[in-house]
Amino acid sequence: MEAKITTCFSKIDHFGFAEDRTFKQRYLIADQHWKSDIGSMLFYTGNEGDITWFANNTGFMWNVAEELDAILVFAEHRYYGESLPFGNKSFADAKHLNYLTSEQALADFAVLVDHLKKTIPGAQDTPVIAIGGSYGGMLAAWFRMKYPHIVVGALAASAPIWQFDNLVPCGSFYSIVTQDFEKSGNCCSESIRNSWAAIDRLASTAEGLHWLSCTFRLCSPLKSVRDAAAFKAWLSEIWVNLAMVDYPYKANFLQPLPAWPIQVVCKYLKNPKLPDKLLLQNIFQAVNVYFNYTEHTSCFNLTQSATKSLGLQGWYYQSCTEMVMPMCSDGINDMFEPQAWDFHAYSEECFKMWGVRPRPSWIPISYGGKNISAHSNIIFSNGGLDPWSGGGVLRNITDTLVAIVIPEGAHHLDLRSNSPFDPDSVLKARLLEVHFMRLWIQQDRRLKKCAR
Amino acid sequence: MEAKITTCFSKIDHFGFAEDRTFKQRYLIADQHWKSDIGSMLFYTGNEGDITWFANNTGFMWNVAEELDAILVFAEHRYYGESLPFGNKSFADAKHLNYLTSEQALADFAVLVDHLKKTIPGAQDTPVIAIGGSYGGMLAAWFRMKYPHIVVGALAASAPIWQFDNLVPCGSFYSIVTQDFEKSGNCCSESIRNSWAAIDRLASTAEGLHWLSCTFRLCSPLKSVRDAAAFKAWLSEIWVNLAMVDYPYKANFLQPLPAWPIQVVCKYLKNPKLPDKLLLQNIFQAVNVYFNYTEHTSCFNLTQSATKSLGLQGWYYQSCTEMVMPMCSDGINDMFEPQAWDFHAYSEECFKMWGVRPRPSWIPISYGGKNISAHSNIIFSNGGLDPWSGGGVLRNITDTLVAIVIPEGAHHLDLRSNSPFDPDSVLKARLLEVHFMRLWIQQDRRLKKCAR
Repeated sequence: MEAKITTCFSKIDHFGFAEDRTFKQRYLIADQHWKSDIGSMLFYTGNEGDITWFANNTGFMWNVAEELDAILVFAEHRYYGESLPFGNKSFADAKHLNYLTSEQALADFAVLVDHLKKTIPGAQDTPVIAIGGSYGGMLAAWFRMKYPHIVVGALAASAPIWQFDNLVPCGSFYSIVTQDFEKSGNCCSESIRNSWAAIDRLASTAEGLHWLSCTFRLCSPLKSVRDAAAFKAWLSEIWVNLAMVDYPYKANFLQPLPAWPIQVVCKYLKNPKLPDKLLLQNIFQAVNVYFNYTEHTSCFNLTQSATKSLGLQGWYYQSCTEMVMPMCSDGINDMFEPQAWDFHAYSEECFKMWGVRPRPSWIPISYGGKNISAHSNIIFSNGGLDPWSGGGVLRNITDTLVAIVIPEGAHHLDLRSNSPFDPDSVLKARLLEVHFMRLWIQQDRRLKKCAR
Repeated sequence: MEAKITTCFSKIDHFGFAEDRTFKQRYLIADQHWKSDIGSMLFYTGNEGDITWFANNTGFMWNVAEELDAILVFAEHRYYGESLPFGNKSFADAKHLNYLTSEQALADFAVLVDHLKKTIPGAQDTPVIAIGGSYGGMLAAWFRMKYPHIVVGALAASAPIWQFDNLVPCGSFYSIVTQDFEKSGNCCSESIRNSWAAIDRLASTAEGLHWLSCTFRLCSPLKSVRDAAAFKAWLSEIWVNLAMVDYPYKANFLQPLPAWPIQVVCKYLKNPKLPDKLLLQNIFQAVNVYFNYTEHTSCFNLTQSATKSLGLQGWYYQSCTEMVMPMCSDGINDMFEPQAWDFHAYSEECFKMWGVRPRPSWIPISYGGKNISAHSNIIFSNGGLDPWSGGGVLRNITDTLVAIVIPEGAHHLDLRSNSPFDPDSVLKARLLEVHFMRLWIQQDRRLKKCAR
């Protein structure tokens, strides 16, 4: 089954009329299994990256296309991949970035679905289901909330819609990461917890900085305490990414990795009490699992910690405007260095970088925060291993706002292709997801029949 | 019971971050009857005009405040009254007008309710009901649709949410106006229907133009066929306005008028077969009822046909962007000159006037068109005499999307103060409206109690 890559025109600004130009939005479409009279449309609400990459990492949609007689659409999010409103000037300044918001993205999706229904013969009455993971999952849920006339339901996988404005404790994210390491090997999290001070002690001398740079094969050697801070941030991000992609089989999402990668990492981290250099040599072995699984990396670059398919620039801007997700660590409930959530500093940093100020309370005002019970037909699925599950919906809100928890699941495992190594919990989750999608499709078809 | 006039700061652009300034939004608040533990907040979603004028013409809210233990809030719509984002430059050009959209207005309301709940002691858990009439009624309905976490329900009075993109026949509006005149006097609509050709015949000579200018006491005399067209447009608007405010008692909404003003007007329009000048002298008598009821008008100005409390400039801009309401007349099903709906000409006119192009399909894509059954807790009330009812919801959509028709009602009669002259149908409508509002309040209080 193959997807056709195509584009449509969307207004750069759906919410104002002074800017009347359009841009080319890319989307993929696959209709091999579609049956117009009984089928459905599964619409992936693209998130912060190249849409072909998401299409390749959302095997679930391809797996269920036949049984749901579904046409698949993967819509690229504006400002990512090839869907750049102002071409290579899109990130030039705050003026060009002004149309990078979740509301504009949802409006793009609404216009695209409307266009597809009007132009694909037989699609006019096809029920559409929004599907997305992570930020794409938030978009799927919000799409159903704001445009219930366009999508009959949404599967929001690993969507931390509550990771805003202190709706959940800011420490939950890092504490879940830590639990993953605790569960994956004896003294594993303790080794990481002890590594920060070891790094600090080494970073206090020129010799130590040199040793760290060599030992960790850094492309640019560390020269100062500030460099050491960036080095620690890079390590933190690796531990976080490992928690997100702790899948039960060999996979290549953020990086090519073995099955249960944290267990593999933790094999090197059994002794937290070692002297600094020995401890950090083990940390290097662990890092090496993350980066060097395919053995292509000659040196490590602190500015690149994961796939290039993610649009980091765009996401940094979004984090500095709408997507303000308070995070903190305390070193007690988690294995990270203590760091309070400091909105003021965050806002200053954003202003320096982009010339804009974040608005942390806007997302809850716009999308409802915890008060979403008036909506319907949304599945919130979350993996127990996924640090983002701390900001997710983990309990049913109503009969039609349903939570599915996959204890052995990392970041939207349920959206990935079927695998013989899938734990039972994700198989059950997928069955339940298909059950609800089928239900929404039937309800919608019945409703339309009665309206005739 | 008196309202306090106050202001709050709202972002000029809720949907972008390059423009980070705020403006002062005006609102009225009256809390004399409010009981925080059992009460509610009735929130008027201000429309295209001065909010004090709407507050004065929405007696219904004042009448029910005590029985619903309600705090009343009347929020002014941006770009109207004193809520001007850029002061006297607000209408300067398309750039300054760029933030005049229904979406921005709803976001203002959402932010304002959030602010009130957080700052008024005891208001945090108070259920809020949106109430509005006409465009304000559309906003009330859309507010509930887009922000159901902020308002528990909406009373959308005389809200023509379907007067868009050919969801209803473009001729319904003028045909309802015509029916009002048909019902209000023998041969009344026929007299008006015949007046257009009579005007044309007179306008074809200089003497005739002079006669028309004198007879109709125009402030600026007619000089050309083009002036005559403007004159006919002015007359049409008067007939339309009379249909909108055909109230059963003396009132001053668009103009000070007697009870059942169309009946009064029609007393002068009993003989459609008169020679041109005699027919038009009668038309003048009719016009005089509309303008001269208080006998203060010395001459008539073609550019002013109703209250100055409405912000015409702003509304013209909105009509040229989002609020594209196709209208047409055929002279057969209505008493007006035949005029097809010509979107192309409309769009050209808009571009000439404001430098923007209308987007006629956006409102249905954004707010659902006829496909709104996923929403809940909205009352759509419409008057049978009201030309806008042609674009309104006249039948129940679900148990909680309820239509109320008031056969003897003109434009949102139900929102006006109680009057001894109120027809039974509006009394029943108001009872039903209060019944539903009470229900929503109780449901919300019960829900919040369980969540604790």
